[in-house]
Amino acid sequence: MHITSERLLDDGVVERDLTLGGTTGLLWTAGAAPAPLILVGHPGGLRTMYPRVAGRARYYAREHGFHAAALELPGAGDRPPRPGADEARADLRRALEAREPVDEIVDRLVLPLVDEAVPEARAALDELLALPEMEGRVGCDGGVLAIGLRLALVDPRVRAAVLFAGSFVPRQVVEECRRLTVPVQLLLQWDDEWNDRQAALDVFDAIGSAEKTLHANLGGHTGVPAYELAQAGDFFVRHLR
Amino acid sequence: MHITSERLLDDGVVERDLTLGGTTGLLWTAGAAPAPLILVGHPGGLRTMYPRVAGRARYYAREHGFHAAALELPGAGDRPPRPGADEARADLRRALEAREPVDEIVDRLVLPLVDEAVPEARAALDELLALPEMEGRVGCDGGVLAIGLRLALVDPRVRAAVLFAGSFVPRQVVEECRRLTVPVQLLLQWDDEWNDRQAALDVFDAIGSAEKTLHANLGGHTGVPAYELAQAGDFFVRHLR
Repeated sequence: MHITSERLLDDGVVERDLTLGGTTGLLWTAGAAPAPLILVGHPGGLRTMYPRVAGRARYYAREHGFHAAALELPGAGDRPPRPGADEARADLRRALEAREPVDEIVDRLVLPLVDEAVPEARAALDELLALPEMEGRVGCDGGVLAIGLRLALVDPRVRAAVLFAGSFVPRQVVEECRRLTVPVQLLLQWDDEWNDRQAALDVFDAIGSAEKTLHANLGGHTGVPAYELAQAGDFFVRHLR
Repeated sequence: MHITSERLLDDGVVERDLTLGGTTGLLWTAGAAPAPLILVGHPGGLRTMYPRVAGRARYYAREHGFHAAALELPGAGDRPPRPGADEARADLRRALEAREPVDEIVDRLVLPLVDEAVPEARAALDELLALPEMEGRVGCDGGVLAIGLRLALVDPRVRAAVLFAGSFVPRQVVEECRRLTVPVQLLLQWDDEWNDRQAALDVFDAIGSAEKTLHANLGGHTGVPAYELAQAGDFFVRHLR
């Protein structure tokens, strides 16, 4: 892991640019005391998503003393595009407009991303959790739903996950999440213009965890109400402290 | 309004037994300072439901300084049974077991209860809100869903409602709640053995309020997780303070 730059933000949180495990990322630390790490997700393109990702990360650090990190996804930002992704994305758009089934296209688009992003995130966690201020436990926060579900399933360091409901979850990952055991809080935008509500409810239904909560709010894809951030914080405190 | 008994509880909350507006009730006050009132609902039978109702009421008083009240419902507790209710209840049980449609029976069972309970609750609110420690705003918390929806629609003193999702909502009340404007937080038990999940989701969908949130949790009818009480408290603080 290399720290390429570092700054002290006005809320006392230290923000660092990193290269680690074959990707780039950001780390926000709340202090030197050992604390859990929140991995803040995004749809890819960390530079564009920075305000939203940093807002969540700094909230967790400031309010609860958690550290937070975000990683660039395969094929996003300055990284080379993933083979076949552009074509699959165009196929998905066409199928959605024509109201045709999308399962096969979602598998083709999202499954290779999950297969690549999850081992990469785990390698990054190996490096991040070696830092002296890391307590060892990890919470997943948002990002690509299928990546969060797979990571929470396969990595025992992940103890809790706040995820954003989407309907573009490969069938294999939906099946896998029946074996999930970590507590999950799933946010669903009731009028999400990009995701199918019933498919998202089906994903919630499939999650095997004994503690799972769905928070559905009125509004479109980007309209998650501000108060959900505080409830995500409370959820992480409940499960990581 | 008559206070028939009064006691100071060990958390400093004062609990009073009341007769008011043709029914009986309980009032919990958190102090002399003017504060909003939370009306804590229940399915009827306040004596049986006391531990659960008093637990919620005292939490709101202790944690947030809200006053709280609960009212006996028409036909419940020591009150005379409502005409036709026993028969309708038996019909409902039969229809549910036979997996037959229940809309007509729900209308026959629940609509007269709503028509009687809501004016009664409003009359009780008139008396309660005349007390010097009442600030004027009211939050509805739980109880019979159709009563909460109607009360939140017709009484402008109700500014926020935390409701427990059920599927036994008369069709007229589902239609009415498209005109609702107060913020609603709806709790749904995902595996509720007494309520139909899709019908409950349809009620959530019908609610017209610009701020509405569904909290769905794994578990059966009586398995609402303890942390939902804190989230209900935060919701009332957001809207009543």
